[in-house]
Amino acid sequence: MSALRWTAAGTDGGARAGVLRTAHGTVPTPVFMPVGTAGTVKAMTADSVRATGARMILGNTYHLMLRPGAERVARLGGLHRMADWHGPILTDSGGFQVMSLSGLRKMDADGVTFRSHIDGSAHRLTPERSIEIQHLLGADVTMCFDECTPFPATEAQTATSMRLSMAWAARCRAAFVPRDGYGLFGIVQGGVFNALRAESVAALTEIGFEGYAIGGLAVGEGQAEMYRVLEATVPLLPADRPRYLMGVGTPDDLIGAVARGIDMFDCVLPTRSGRTARAYTSRGVLNMRNARHAEDLSPLDPDCPCPACQKHSRAYIHHLIRADEILGPMLLTWHNIQYYQTLMGRLRAAILDGRFTEEAAAIRAGWQERAIA
Amino acid sequence: MSALRWTAAGTDGGARAGVLRTAHGTVPTPVFMPVGTAGTVKAMTADSVRATGARMILGNTYHLMLRPGAERVARLGGLHRMADWHGPILTDSGGFQVMSLSGLRKMDADGVTFRSHIDGSAHRLTPERSIEIQHLLGADVTMCFDECTPFPATEAQTATSMRLSMAWAARCRAAFVPRDGYGLFGIVQGGVFNALRAESVAALTEIGFEGYAIGGLAVGEGQAEMYRVLEATVPLLPADRPRYLMGVGTPDDLIGAVARGIDMFDCVLPTRSGRTARAYTSRGVLNMRNARHAEDLSPLDPDCPCPACQKHSRAYIHHLIRADEILGPMLLTWHNIQYYQTLMGRLRAAILDGRFTEEAAAIRAGWQERAIA
Repeated sequence: MSALRWTAAGTDGGARAGVLRTAHGTVPTPVFMPVGTAGTVKAMTADSVRATGARMILGNTYHLMLRPGAERVARLGGLHRMADWHGPILTDSGGFQVMSLSGLRKMDADGVTFRSHIDGSAHRLTPERSIEIQHLLGADVTMCFDECTPFPATEAQTATSMRLSMAWAARCRAAFVPRDGYGLFGIVQGGVFNALRAESVAALTEIGFEGYAIGGLAVGEGQAEMYRVLEATVPLLPADRPRYLMGVGTPDDLIGAVARGIDMFDCVLPTRSGRTARAYTSRGVLNMRNARHAEDLSPLDPDCPCPACQKHSRAYIHHLIRADEILGPMLLTWHNIQYYQTLMGRLRAAILDGRFTEEAAAIRAGWQERAIA
Repeated sequence: MSALRWTAAGTDGGARAGVLRTAHGTVPTPVFMPVGTAGTVKAMTADSVRATGARMILGNTYHLMLRPGAERVARLGGLHRMADWHGPILTDSGGFQVMSLSGLRKMDADGVTFRSHIDGSAHRLTPERSIEIQHLLGADVTMCFDECTPFPATEAQTATSMRLSMAWAARCRAAFVPRDGYGLFGIVQGGVFNALRAESVAALTEIGFEGYAIGGLAVGEGQAEMYRVLEATVPLLPADRPRYLMGVGTPDDLIGAVARGIDMFDCVLPTRSGRTARAYTSRGVLNMRNARHAEDLSPLDPDCPCPACQKHSRAYIHHLIRADEILGPMLLTWHNIQYYQTLMGRLRAAILDGRFTEEAAAIRAGWQERAIA
């Protein structure tokens, strides 16, 4: 029996290209995983997600355990079958969302009791229950249940929180049922403190995981501080395991994190932006609600193969947004997911060709063009 | 130069099959036109509308004149190009929506002044301006601007209203610019009064139109009364012109109206129902919000080729509706449009095979199955 595994295909400086092999197929890395919160990438069919080149998506334990419920998803054949997504799925542990429910949750050393934001009903998550839920969902990649350290936090607070997460990581490893092509990822915590990050990496590698995530970033520390933590942490991680930066980020964040050795990403930004009239393009970000697009017959992005760009003008998309037509968010979400996939494909090709720095500079220069124009 | 025209392909009792030839292609009739109110069939891409077999859609003059504006649509290349819809489009005249703005509108013999429901701005529609707007939009079928007679109304009120519409019909005919493959339809009014319907048909056929619509029905008179008016009116219409029953209706209404010689339909029912969790199926109407679907692994309709039915369970669609996911309305709208297209295809095939009565009975029997089960 062989667990999910990652193999390198090439490196360029700190950036790595590779292939992740899972029970539901292989995924070229670096990879951006669109977020399918409640069993759907919002405003997209699974077919349209696939059409962007996306090969792996994320599902949310918190949302799915509340509705439709983990046992129900299992009875419906698992998340892959329910959502018609036949590629790999990574599920988060539920920890991040539960910790965000200030006032509605109560932590103890064993786990967290909380109330549903939907109907106020009481629920409990422990490391064991989180792993069980992710098993019921059928996740290819299961994430350890950890405490999300608040930001900002003192070094002492951060240490206490990180050590609790490390204890829980051992419980998650024990609870996880190994299966061919499935894997469990540990999550490095320790906030902005190098020594704590190193202690966390040591604790996790001692336990041993199929991949390592870096948690507790993109919580308000800023891009420079995030990069500093990555530079201090990534070199400590085993070179033969995939590295996942959770909840990140903007296209610029992704380029910077790939340069620092990250292989996997997820973020709600492309989907959420699609529902708030924003389009990521090779020439920067567009606010499609803006009246300057009202008679613009050009596409969102002349370099983009998505249907929004191939079939429609900025003027039409502006009209759809102004008229509150569902097709507006549908087209913008599709475009943004496509943009992120195209971006990751360009970065991967550049790593394999040994021209990552030049490609990153060219992409960033494109964003500047519009700012100048 | 030849205007838009309809040719018969076969009849079975009162039901007719034919082909409508327009500037943007041919359309087999009887045809159901999905409603694309503001330049989009709500929650559908144009590609997905086409995938259901739909060949012709409807656009709304009222909505499009207010936003993005008829002159702007023309500058964007017309409605076909703006919406990526390359088949024929029929536009209504704006009359129905404007008449519905009670309190916000003022009628006179020349036209209607009204305030926009969007921003309260003042606008005016006359027969000439309605025809001009529909020309700017690029409609293959332009509809005469008429007064929608209130329901209920006395015979005297109905007569006055109908005669005003007939005077406006002559002005519409004069204002319409004939072009190859384009056409203008007159609208028969007269409420539930046979003599007034006959007078209206006589007035319109005296003017001469490329097609004839029956207006002022489906406004509360009930199906039996609607059928009675059709039986009194349709035989008076020229047999070589297409007949369009405006704003109708349920699948059962369509069968009954096709039986009475109607060729064309539009209705918001399949799209609106898709956004309110209702699915039309070969076994009746389903309310997908209902908890009984929560673990039902069967498709909405086992006989349906749409993606909602081919790829997903009732349980998943129920989950999407409960979770307020946009994909719920997207899938249900697609399914409902597909259901209407499949229905019209079955009716047309049955007419050509001389078994319309049997097919209609079989379809209606299917709806009963679930009521019994």
